[in-house]
Amino acid sequence: MNNPVLSLKRCPRRPRVLDGHPWVFAGEVETLLPKSVNGLAVDLVDPRRRPLGTGIYNSRSKLVWRRFARDNGVPWDDSTVAGRIEAAVARRDPSVRYGRLVWSEADDLPGLVVDRYDDVLVVQALTLAVDRLLPAIVDCLQSLPDLAEIVRRNDTPVRRQEGLDLNVSTVSGADVPSRWFSIEGIEFRLDLTGGQKTGFYLDQREQHPAVGFLAKGRRVLDAFCHQGGFALHCAKSGAASVLAIDSSAEAVENARANAARNGLTITAEAANVFDFFTAHREERGLFDLIILDPPPFARSRSALDGALRGYKELNLRALRLLSPGGILATYTCSQPVDRALFRSVLADAAHDARRSVTILGEPRQPADHPVRLDFPESEYLRGYWLQAD
Amino acid sequence: MNNPVLSLKRCPRRPRVLDGHPWVFAGEVETLLPKSVNGLAVDLVDPRRRPLGTGIYNSRSKLVWRRFARDNGVPWDDSTVAGRIEAAVARRDPSVRYGRLVWSEADDLPGLVVDRYDDVLVVQALTLAVDRLLPAIVDCLQSLPDLAEIVRRNDTPVRRQEGLDLNVSTVSGADVPSRWFSIEGIEFRLDLTGGQKTGFYLDQREQHPAVGFLAKGRRVLDAFCHQGGFALHCAKSGAASVLAIDSSAEAVENARANAARNGLTITAEAANVFDFFTAHREERGLFDLIILDPPPFARSRSALDGALRGYKELNLRALRLLSPGGILATYTCSQPVDRALFRSVLADAAHDARRSVTILGEPRQPADHPVRLDFPESEYLRGYWLQAD
Repeated sequence: MNNPVLSLKRCPRRPRVLDGHPWVFAGEVETLLPKSVNGLAVDLVDPRRRPLGTGIYNSRSKLVWRRFARDNGVPWDDSTVAGRIEAAVARRDPSVRYGRLVWSEADDLPGLVVDRYDDVLVVQALTLAVDRLLPAIVDCLQSLPDLAEIVRRNDTPVRRQEGLDLNVSTVSGADVPSRWFSIEGIEFRLDLTGGQKTGFYLDQREQHPAVGFLAKGRRVLDAFCHQGGFALHCAKSGAASVLAIDSSAEAVENARANAARNGLTITAEAANVFDFFTAHREERGLFDLIILDPPPFARSRSALDGALRGYKELNLRALRLLSPGGILATYTCSQPVDRALFRSVLADAAHDARRSVTILGEPRQPADHPVRLDFPESEYLRGYWLQAD
Repeated sequence: MNNPVLSLKRCPRRPRVLDGHPWVFAGEVETLLPKSVNGLAVDLVDPRRRPLGTGIYNSRSKLVWRRFARDNGVPWDDSTVAGRIEAAVARRDPSVRYGRLVWSEADDLPGLVVDRYDDVLVVQALTLAVDRLLPAIVDCLQSLPDLAEIVRRNDTPVRRQEGLDLNVSTVSGADVPSRWFSIEGIEFRLDLTGGQKTGFYLDQREQHPAVGFLAKGRRVLDAFCHQGGFALHCAKSGAASVLAIDSSAEAVENARANAARNGLTITAEAANVFDFFTAHREERGLFDLIILDPPPFARSRSALDGALRGYKELNLRALRLLSPGGILATYTCSQPVDRALFRSVLADAAHDARRSVTILGEPRQPADHPVRLDFPESEYLRGYWLQAD
């Protein structure tokens, strides 16, 4: 098999691909290849023509090459992709009915994301190369047991950078109406084809009951409640009270409806979290467990400083409201905020709050969102369970 | 209560105590206090006389002040120490019969370490201030239920830096002969008053069965086996084979005796681990699970570079010997080797071994060795469970 060849140029700044990273940017290559190669397999070589693996290519993106194999000369075809999907599925716990089945570079399939919601698969094709082979990918996924539907959820704006249009369709051709899904023992109403607020944060599904387990007898604040994943598990586990807030009225509506469906009692209110903390800043000891699982504050390095200020402020205010012995379950899903940065922000917050804080746990993203040593971008979700004196 | 007062001086390099760290070094203070204050409580103030907490003082040590309270004016007496011990015990799971009950600064008792081995407590007094109050500390510990003996294990050389002598004694006055202890379902013969090789790494007791759980059907290498904590749990969990090596012939003897006592089959051999890997370097795929839990390579920052080279080499060689899908359970207990450093070493090793490696877990020290946000030195044990392609 002869793939087109892409050459790294000599750079003053050493390209990360030489140390095993799977990405090459346009500025790192000798000459871009013709557009006809977009979406195809390309062999990468270093300036001395030594092989660096096979990747998918797209000159429309700044990220021109994304590795899917350590050897050169590997084809990007139905058979390769099917093998990769089988390996990704085999790597996961078959008893898990909700979770990620395929995750892009972490599964050597750059741009393919497949999530399972019970009997429904939601497939995202985020690169031209994946989009080209989507029929074969869907064929391969259809052989999985106990499936009723596959949704092609190709409405992520990042597709435009690859020259792809946005659309949502199902393999059956039928609509997938919103319905109840039972995740970790609690029912949630999800719309798998609809707006961005209606999915479920599958990457936190293990954290919801785990934090719930800490909640027994405690007065709980879930400060970015979304559909109520944390709040409902806390109520189920016997929290003394649960207050769930979110800036989105729609999220609060969903959390209330989910609580009612499960016969659980929570108070859900639409509120800006920073304003909420300001309004209650004098009420120290108001909560025994506070959960902070905000949306990403920084998606890129350039937004990092502001993000760190935001995390500091948020965690400082939460620590001030905690009772003695109170627990803060705090998360960041901002990829550039690595564990060391997040921890130093939390240490600053604890110092300013004059609280001695012990780390009870350092939760991380679940095993079906695998972190690859050679691809730090695969890690984005970091948490701390903290106990204040 | 009037404590003597110690003043920070204006330093070009900001003392860490201003950001909440519990330590002050001799070079950071205006004037040292008279020797008569050694072992007593001292109030710390900043150059503008603002209070920074109460600590124990010893001018014989470079580390002259170690905080035990955030407020100034707190006495260091029987009552304070008893209250801190009660809080430390209350913080721990009462059902755990093997573990750390009190841990120095992490429990606001700088220099006091108390470990529980079933009905025996082992107490270490590592500071003059703790040594002074040792009778009251022992009285307080004797009120714990189900205790047969308390060992004062004051033979750690660090005591000399505090002006203390080295000795070992028991509260009953009787000898504590070596005997069998059942830890996590496996019996180990331990000598709690004897040489340094005869204790047990209580901080890894949760990891032993957890890694054992991964061992079923696998060919296992436990490369720094000590008394066999990992190796025996792997054998118990149905490993296909277990090879345990250690450079200490005494450790290998202990591991063999422990295996026999528990009716478990392992092969234990005295060998230098680096030599072992060199001898077998061509035998790729020789093991399906390799455990690397070496002694600390770096106890101080000055030894860091050499330590990182050692970890790189060790993990590289282990990765080369792993079968496809093989697991590496690798640890560092070198305090200065933080998680980011350890991870970058592992990424280098994986790159050099040409293996794609996924992080399955990031084990950390157990909850009874609490990590305090304001005291990074309380964290020293970091692990990675890695799966190679």
